[in-house]
Amino acid sequence: MSRIAVIGGVAAGMSAAARAKRLDPSCEVTVIEKGEYVTYGACGLPYFLEGRMLRAQSLVVYTPDYLREKRGIDVRTGVAAESVSPARREVVLSDGSRLGYDRLIFATGARARTGLPGAAQPHIFTLQTIPQAEAIQAFLQERKPKRAVVVGAGYLGLEAAEALRYNGLEVTVMTRGANVLRRGEPWLTELVAKHIDKFGVPLRLSAEVSAIGSDDVAGEPADIVVLAVGFRPNAELAAEAGVMLGRTGAIAVNDLLETNVPAIYAAGDCAEHLHRVTAQPVYHPLGTSANKMGRIAGANAAGHRERFPGIVGTGIVGIFGLGIGVTGLSAAMARDAGFDAVAARIEAPSRAMYMGGRPATVELVADRRSGRLLGATVVGEQDTAGRINTAATALTARLTVEEFAQLDLAYAPPFATVWDPLLIAAQQLLKDL
Amino acid sequence: MSRIAVIGGVAAGMSAAARAKRLDPSCEVTVIEKGEYVTYGACGLPYFLEGRMLRAQSLVVYTPDYLREKRGIDVRTGVAAESVSPARREVVLSDGSRLGYDRLIFATGARARTGLPGAAQPHIFTLQTIPQAEAIQAFLQERKPKRAVVVGAGYLGLEAAEALRYNGLEVTVMTRGANVLRRGEPWLTELVAKHIDKFGVPLRLSAEVSAIGSDDVAGEPADIVVLAVGFRPNAELAAEAGVMLGRTGAIAVNDLLETNVPAIYAAGDCAEHLHRVTAQPVYHPLGTSANKMGRIAGANAAGHRERFPGIVGTGIVGIFGLGIGVTGLSAAMARDAGFDAVAARIEAPSRAMYMGGRPATVELVADRRSGRLLGATVVGEQDTAGRINTAATALTARLTVEEFAQLDLAYAPPFATVWDPLLIAAQQLLKDL
Repeated sequence: MSRIAVIGGVAAGMSAAARAKRLDPSCEVTVIEKGEYVTYGACGLPYFLEGRMLRAQSLVVYTPDYLREKRGIDVRTGVAAESVSPARREVVLSDGSRLGYDRLIFATGARARTGLPGAAQPHIFTLQTIPQAEAIQAFLQERKPKRAVVVGAGYLGLEAAEALRYNGLEVTVMTRGANVLRRGEPWLTELVAKHIDKFGVPLRLSAEVSAIGSDDVAGEPADIVVLAVGFRPNAELAAEAGVMLGRTGAIAVNDLLETNVPAIYAAGDCAEHLHRVTAQPVYHPLGTSANKMGRIAGANAAGHRERFPGIVGTGIVGIFGLGIGVTGLSAAMARDAGFDAVAARIEAPSRAMYMGGRPATVELVADRRSGRLLGATVVGEQDTAGRINTAATALTARLTVEEFAQLDLAYAPPFATVWDPLLIAAQQLLKDL
Repeated sequence: MSRIAVIGGVAAGMSAAARAKRLDPSCEVTVIEKGEYVTYGACGLPYFLEGRMLRAQSLVVYTPDYLREKRGIDVRTGVAAESVSPARREVVLSDGSRLGYDRLIFATGARARTGLPGAAQPHIFTLQTIPQAEAIQAFLQERKPKRAVVVGAGYLGLEAAEALRYNGLEVTVMTRGANVLRRGEPWLTELVAKHIDKFGVPLRLSAEVSAIGSDDVAGEPADIVVLAVGFRPNAELAAEAGVMLGRTGAIAVNDLLETNVPAIYAAGDCAEHLHRVTAQPVYHPLGTSANKMGRIAGANAAGHRERFPGIVGTGIVGIFGLGIGVTGLSAAMARDAGFDAVAARIEAPSRAMYMGGRPATVELVADRRSGRLLGATVVGEQDTAGRINTAATALTARLTVEEFAQLDLAYAPPFATVWDPLLIAAQQLLKDL
């Protein structure tokens, strides 16, 4: 019998706790969560704001009571871990109590960046937790703001912009960067800008946002501001306990999700992720890898030896019906990583035109030296997730473009064209390799 | 300068001709097509019947005139190849003329099986060519049949049933086999039967169809009958010329798509396909591989050396909004092929429920000895093609289930769930491996 302590009870933390307990029911598993809710799907919060569900709490999968009673996991909410002593194998909690452990899992997640002067004003929000989403909703209902600025053009910024627009506000998306999604893809930025503009949402690039005013951001009038400028790993508690951080500032882990400190694991948004295309650690906080890492950290804390092979940087975001999927490296990222990057981009119907096929844009990136596929970006109103997943699988398997171009992909008129846009892009890329 | 003759001008043939001419414009490329049309998308014919387009001819991509004038390909329609003499490197045509060649490509396609007594009656149809589809449409308009029987529950049978139903007929699908899609999957058969029954189309399995009556098929009243009981390769002409056929009855080719006879290639539905999961030749006639093989045979006939790596048996069919995707081996097929097959099947929402996610059913099949993924079947109203393509890519790369379960797949609520149904199925399968 061993004691497993998990700090953080959202995606990685609760996945870890549940898996450890399932694999070894004799473990005493305790989860410390400083918030009120555990196991909630934070990715659904923009859709709560959009009005897809009445209560943000419906994103909660399990209540602490359920987890305690049905799963035998000691879930403690509303209490924070104040410090960790690896020497004593003990966590000191904010209520003054101490929690001993044999294995400890950091699943402390990330927090939205807010480091801008003026960010503490009451009309400035982030959108990461249930209470934050509820606060935005209450502000919308009570104060009836008319003009919104979303700072940041990443996944969350775009989703927040859509949600605010659906609430009837005038919305501007503003980013300090030159591009959406931080991938250095001007063509993608242009495509997205054109699309969201049709829905009345302008995209303002390279904005000099140095502070947030009381009724404007960089000259853009704003009754409400949502900050979506990225996340910072909650790694301080671990660092203070002697756990090594990587160059990204997140907790460094090996493929068993062990940290440098014996008996301490880390999983999810507080930890680094091995990028399988570059073989470098990156910080790429997403719910998908948080859940996968949680399960593995939980298994290993319970005495198993499972390996997390890393990520390929897959992501997707929808805005006003347009899907934007990415995996691996963009051309710019590939060049930065030292590859001799070649890219090809095509537009082709996603399905047979007579079945209502809409255009899909596919850019594929490859390494000229090895011929290996390095990344893909797919944009379209149909089938975007499936195409990006196909490319992600190819990246995982390190396929060359030549191999990729011969993939036996499905075709029938309601679903694709006889040459899938992915294959057309691969053929185009082969000409340049 | 060399003379390239291509027999057959639909998918493989015209792909071959166009590629050869593009790679070596000095080639004299001649295409012999016994029908009236070339380069048409035969897979669209059921959708023409369904009413998605006014004229079946809109499925034609290029006219012979265009190909002659703009591409410099000598396309001869309405003329058949009667015999081939490899010794004289010559094709004898039905108009009595002779066509010399330096390289010959058989792209003679396949023909619908019709070998049933009574199949020659005027109300019995197949659905493979533009004239056949037009004949069905004319029969529907002029004779106003009320009751239809579709014999065959493969891709084309299901699509034809949907098309006839959309024309207001009472439709029964009847098959001599015990299952749909010839994969030995009773659970899939049940799912499909239940779905099409909701649209008023019963599925009659294990039917003893030994002949077709004047107003019934095996006791089922029928004013019109569509035969969709599979395809037979048009390999006779090649066989008579000394080209070796494989055990499937189709033309045997190597990965350069060469036959056993020097200077003769074969591509598309007249040829065998290497199945990459079993490493055995199979007969799996589909437009996707026909186009791929055509390109490669054309390139090689023009002096290049490209390789066709084979297929993994991917296919998809839609019926009344339900997508059924398959790739690799079903459990029954895997056992037949000598694998120690293990399968797991799950049902899970395709997307977040609050975004309108509908159930997706995924069955994965693996080999217990190697842990390798062998096949997948995906059924659902959303995202079926993308999931089957992801699995097809994994099969191509010979991923194990363990590797598959860690794929970095895309998630955002409008597109998927945080654990994609594919990954849930893989986790389930891992428990049984």
